[in-house]
Amino acid sequence: MLIIKEEDIKVPLDVSQEARETYINNYMEITRNTGKLMLFAGDQKVEHLNDDFFGDGVPSDDNDPEHLFKIAANSRIGVFATQLGLIARYGMDYPDVPYLVKINSKSHLVKTKQDDPFSTQWYDIEQVARLRDNSGLKILGIGYTIYLGSKYEAEMLYQAAQLIYEAHQYGLLTVLWIYPRGVAVENEKDPHLIAGATGVGACLNADFVKVNYPKAEGMKTEEAFKEAVLAAGRTKVVCAGGSSDDPEVFLKKLHAQIHVSGAHGNATGRNIHQKTLDEAVRMCNAIYAITVEDASAEDALRIYKGE
Amino acid sequence: MLIIKEEDIKVPLDVSQEARETYINNYMEITRNTGKLMLFAGDQKVEHLNDDFFGDGVPSDDNDPEHLFKIAANSRIGVFATQLGLIARYGMDYPDVPYLVKINSKSHLVKTKQDDPFSTQWYDIEQVARLRDNSGLKILGIGYTIYLGSKYEAEMLYQAAQLIYEAHQYGLLTVLWIYPRGVAVENEKDPHLIAGATGVGACLNADFVKVNYPKAEGMKTEEAFKEAVLAAGRTKVVCAGGSSDDPEVFLKKLHAQIHVSGAHGNATGRNIHQKTLDEAVRMCNAIYAITVEDASAEDALRIYKGE
Amino acid sequence: MLIIKEEDIKVPLDVSQEARETYINNYMEITRNTGKLMLFAGDQKVEHLNDDFFGDGVPSDDNDPEHLFKIAANSRIGVFATQLGLIARYGMDYPDVPYLVKINSKSHLVKTKQDDPFSTQWYDIEQVARLRDNSGLKILGIGYTIYLGSKYEAEMLYQAAQLIYEAHQYGLLTVLWIYPRGVAVENEKDPHLIAGATGVGACLNADFVKVNYPKAEGMKTEEAFKEAVLAAGRTKVVCAGGSSDDPEVFLKKLHAQIHVSGAHGNATGRNIHQKTLDEAVRMCNAIYAITVEDASAEDALRIYKGE
Amino acid sequence: MLIIKEEDIKVPLDVSQEARETYINNYMEITRNTGKLMLFAGDQKVEHLNDDFFGDGVPSDDNDPEHLFKIAANSRIGVFATQLGLIARYGMDYPDVPYLVKINSKSHLVKTKQDDPFSTQWYDIEQVARLRDNSGLKILGIGYTIYLGSKYEAEMLYQAAQLIYEAHQYGLLTVLWIYPRGVAVENEKDPHLIAGATGVGACLNADFVKVNYPKAEGMKTEEAFKEAVLAAGRTKVVCAGGSSDDPEVFLKKLHAQIHVSGAHGNATGRNIHQKTLDEAVRMCNAIYAITVEDASAEDALRIYKGE
Amino acid sequence: MLIIKEEDIKVPLDVSQEARETYINNYMEITRNTGKLMLFAGDQKVEHLNDDFFGDGVPSDDNDPEHLFKIAANSRIGVFATQLGLIARYGMDYPDVPYLVKINSKSHLVKTKQDDPFSTQWYDIEQVARLRDNSGLKILGIGYTIYLGSKYEAEMLYQAAQLIYEAHQYGLLTVLWIYPRGVAVENEKDPHLIAGATGVGACLNADFVKVNYPKAEGMKTEEAFKEAVLAAGRTKVVCAGGSSDDPEVFLKKLHAQIHVSGAHGNATGRNIHQKTLDEAVRMCNAIYAITVEDASAEDALRIYKGE
Repeated sequence: MLIIKEEDIKVPLDVSQEARETYINNYMEITRNTGKLMLFAGDQKVEHLNDDFFGDGVPSDDNDPEHLFKIAANSRIGVFATQLGLIARYGMDYPDVPYLVKINSKSHLVKTKQDDPFSTQWYDIEQVARLRDNSGLKILGIGYTIYLGSKYEAEMLYQAAQLIYEAHQYGLLTVLWIYPRGVAVENEKDPHLIAGATGVGACLNADFVKVNYPKAEGMKTEEAFKEAVLAAGRTKVVCAGGSSDDPEVFLKKLHAQIHVSGAHGNATGRNIHQKTLDEAVRMCNAIYAITVEDASAEDALRIYKGE
Repeated sequence: MLIIKEEDIKVPLDVSQEARETYINNYMEITRNTGKLMLFAGDQKVEHLNDDFFGDGVPSDDNDPEHLFKIAANSRIGVFATQLGLIARYGMDYPDVPYLVKINSKSHLVKTKQDDPFSTQWYDIEQVARLRDNSGLKILGIGYTIYLGSKYEAEMLYQAAQLIYEAHQYGLLTVLWIYPRGVAVENEKDPHLIAGATGVGACLNADFVKVNYPKAEGMKTEEAFKEAVLAAGRTKVVCAGGSSDDPEVFLKKLHAQIHVSGAHGNATGRNIHQKTLDEAVRMCNAIYAITVEDASAEDALRIYKGE
Repeated sequence: MLIIKEEDIKVPLDVSQEARETYINNYMEITRNTGKLMLFAGDQKVEHLNDDFFGDGVPSDDNDPEHLFKIAANSRIGVFATQLGLIARYGMDYPDVPYLVKINSKSHLVKTKQDDPFSTQWYDIEQVARLRDNSGLKILGIGYTIYLGSKYEAEMLYQAAQLIYEAHQYGLLTVLWIYPRGVAVENEKDPHLIAGATGVGACLNADFVKVNYPKAEGMKTEEAFKEAVLAAGRTKVVCAGGSSDDPEVFLKKLHAQIHVSGAHGNATGRNIHQKTLDEAVRMCNAIYAITVEDASAEDALRIYKGE
Repeated sequence: MLIIKEEDIKVPLDVSQEARETYINNYMEITRNTGKLMLFAGDQKVEHLNDDFFGDGVPSDDNDPEHLFKIAANSRIGVFATQLGLIARYGMDYPDVPYLVKINSKSHLVKTKQDDPFSTQWYDIEQVARLRDNSGLKILGIGYTIYLGSKYEAEMLYQAAQLIYEAHQYGLLTVLWIYPRGVAVENEKDPHLIAGATGVGACLNADFVKVNYPKAEGMKTEEAFKEAVLAAGRTKVVCAGGSSDDPEVFLKKLHAQIHVSGAHGNATGRNIHQKTLDEAVRMCNAIYAITVEDASAEDALRIYKGE
Repeated sequence: MLIIKEEDIKVPLDVSQEARETYINNYMEITRNTGKLMLFAGDQKVEHLNDDFFGDGVPSDDNDPEHLFKIAANSRIGVFATQLGLIARYGMDYPDVPYLVKINSKSHLVKTKQDDPFSTQWYDIEQVARLRDNSGLKILGIGYTIYLGSKYEAEMLYQAAQLIYEAHQYGLLTVLWIYPRGVAVENEKDPHLIAGATGVGACLNADFVKVNYPKAEGMKTEEAFKEAVLAAGRTKVVCAGGSSDDPEVFLKKLHAQIHVSGAHGNATGRNIHQKTLDEAVRMCNAIYAITVEDASAEDALRIYKGE
């Protein structure tokens, strides 16, 4: 487990001189001084409405938004990403959680076959910073989703560029979710296309870019994923956790993403919160161990199992 | 009937420090110190044009907009919601009514089969606050409608997020009307979809979210509705009253919404104002008794009947 | 002929305290102290291009825009409504005319079968007020057209709400032209739909709302029109004059609108200006007599005939 | 040749008090104290791309943008209209030329059968005024094109209204190019429709409105064109020169436009610049003689021929 | 090799007085005092996603964005053009490279057959200037792409005009990429159409305009290209390098563009970076020799070959 030093952090040059120290502190905190990001993703109440929180195989606890906060408060995580509204409603009871404000969200009701996806920002950065200062919460950064290849791509690229530039003025970190999607996109999980997405994240000056794990043909996925990790350059790549998976399979995949492909972390939601609190906390800690502490998949699985 | 204490109110963290006291006072007043909201909805003159106010079975009094103000002034209500224009025209004669400004409205002329619904904000919050301060009226909050699943959803989510954030800067309460509607929406009253809607209200930081009462299959509606109430977390759910109903049926349904499903109130329009003044006032009081005073449906019916 | 008193005017509550006196003065002047509005409508040079001003049956004088100003200056009217550009070009020679700036206009070239109508504001209120103050002209108010039921309705409702709110900050009066129009509108002159339109005008806080005179089936039109007059509440309804009519028929219809239906005035254009100056002045005076002075249709006809 | 006096100029009332003198000076200069405008139009490098400047029958000089400036500097003209970019690049070498900034332009690549035309403003007035003040150039006014009847008409009417209002704040003159065009327009050169266009120019408060010369049926065109000249009232009408024509035919037509129809000038481009410098200068001077100096067509032709 | 003098630079008149010296210095530096521009184009990570950086025939170094910076730092170039994000991430380690911020970019996923191209600006000029001042980097100018003939042309013309005007306020140089593209464009490489594009660049006040090298029929391309060079007047034309080519062919073509057609430079990307660092540096230097130092194609080829 590598501890990075503050002086090794390449602070992007759009970070204002006054905000450099804040940026560095946020970077150290969000990565627990390792440069690796364990992001607990909790923005699905808009993205998937209640589908992820209620139904067969989902414990009833998950229907209460507070479930997410309980997990975040009791686990080892880098940051908990969710909408500003939930942070504003529960933050007073969970003041020690590190937060990342997911700035845009859309429901999944309009499918791509009806129209290309567009998700618009809900707030500007000044409003996020005002919340941070008004609440005293540890709001470390912001997140934004781009659907690359959507016919509304131009507007999302613009919003992302603006949000990142302005977030950096306040020392806030930035995470882009970039998903190729739309009529023009034939294969959303093509490794080469996903490398295009991470490269776009780099050109947009994101600190981290979250992409779906590709599906490679004719080679191991963890090998194919290297293209995307390298194409991002100094922007760090993290993998979306996706829909719920068998824990062992999930943890092994995560280990390979980081130790074979070179990813700098993960962004996991359903694989964590679609569990009872106790199990979710253990899953968080297992993911954290791999991501931040260089644990083996086996050690992580033991953490998950509470052994 | 539970009286809440000021110190128990979870003031959302985007409420500015200067506006906290206003927010708390507004919350106490709008819920009559109970946390339960009896909202008298009077925005239909735009939403349904004159259909709700003139015609068979509607007393002629209802064609005069002042009918709404007379009811509001003579009944027990939490708040009267209507467009800013009507408040500005009649408020000087009804200065004691608590008001909620419905910020957006559209006519029902363009049907979903022609185009997905879009309703845009008419004012910004600063203008509402200016009216409040200029008039001295008890303007306690604002309301906004989102059509979830409309292809114009993004713009409405943005407006809602902005309005709520800025309303909270002034200590104003916020109520979202969220209705799934559009080509992409197959069943507007699916309980699971409505739970998605209330969750979106929570993520948007609404104080209250008003939804249609679902239609459940294979289970009691009041049981099915629990999913939506829980999914909203600390955002409180209130049910739309819908089109005029038999009073007894209506009051029993309302009682179940609150005492079985766990809703925190109701938003009723036509079931109140499509009556003569005297009858409307009694209906208001009956609804108020259930919502705010924990009366039984039978007791409420007696109030309605003037017994 | 009823003279109203200043203290009886219900000043809408969005009128700022500083602008109350201006509002009241404007209201008294535009209605000649009667609450009744005789509006001479001269915005057709954009709305209908040159169709109303040149051709068979139209005297050649009417092709010169100054014709409108000569009529306005030599007749008894409440206010002359036209585009800002014409006021800015002729106002120096007609300084005593009371003006109302028609803020939006569109040509009639694109028909509803090609696209739903949209008419956008040309100026903001601050610019109108600057013209007023810079010129010293008696600019008493502003006008705006909404096509209710157009798929562009949302944008027009927004502009109208904003313009009225801001006009009131300057004490300017506001007149909405509201016409149901678009693919979604089957019968633009349905009395019930027109009552919907006047109700929208009330919710938007217009001082006056101008609608087309409905076409009723199975009952007298002046009776059917009452629904619209009542639905507007404290917002006053005035009737559009429409295309040129036989003077006697026109004046009788106008008398019925006011004395049977309860309208508070009229907005007449072509029935006035498509005449020679002398005849147009007499027609104006006849209309004024009915509208403002409670003259009978017969007396008005004598005025028109110069008897 | 009529010399107008400063005190006879009807300064539009939106011209601010501080800018009145500038407006009057600009008006006197642009019309050479006659009220008649000779506008040398050089905006075709965007409007028609390189079609007007290179090819059969066009002298090779015309492919260099400086050709336009040489003509303007060596001829008698009222004003030279072109894009801001060219003025900024050549103005330092042609400081005595009176300039008019053409604010919007579009290419002709998208044809009306593909989409209705829309041309958007490139600058706001403050930027034009900044250029004027920064450069010391004689920038006397601005120009803007409206495609009346286009489905994008609303946006262009708005931009035109705004630009004229704000230009007048700085004392800048305003010229509208108004062309009916779009799917809705059957006959762009219908005299009655063109009279509609000039009337729109008047309502928008343009100082000059440039239209295409109509094509009349059953009467002389110079007679039919009177409708348009009169419909514009105090806004002065100038005729577009159109594509290159035989000089004698062109000059006779121009003479009739001014002396029969009553136009107040012309806006000529290709008939001037699609010639060698010497010939172009003579053509300019010939046009100027008719427009500003009341020369006969014959005298003008002699000027053109260098006799 | 011609050295230009500062006093010979025609500073466009929209450059503010305070920024003249900066503009002149930037012009001298970007052209190495020769008026000729060697632009190393590195914006393809968005424009072409990862297609240009990974795959057959592309050395693996090219997948790392830093490859571009290493080339820029070790070669002789006029300026390195790329997105702001990459400059902000790598600039601290490459402080001596002269930079040009490519302001807009889009992916190539949506093809013209699906929709006409639109690329929107990511930043405004004030943000670019803030980065320049905050970082101390040599940011000399900005770049922007216009798709002429796209149905979104109007918005891009507007953005370009605004960006250039405002960039000049800060003394920044401006380069337009102008490509005719869209349903309306039959032949993107028609020499006459490309001359239209360079003329548009001139009207927009660009300092340099980058176009594709045309494909002429019936004449030599370098002859046909003269039309475009001349049509741009004082705006200087540079040729896009296009996809990778045989070095000898490429260098000869470049020499002809400059010495036959009269182009003032080149903008080359793939022909440089799709090589190992050492080869890329030699290619850069060869291009530089032709562009800036008037070397022959043969001499340049020797430089490329390291002879």
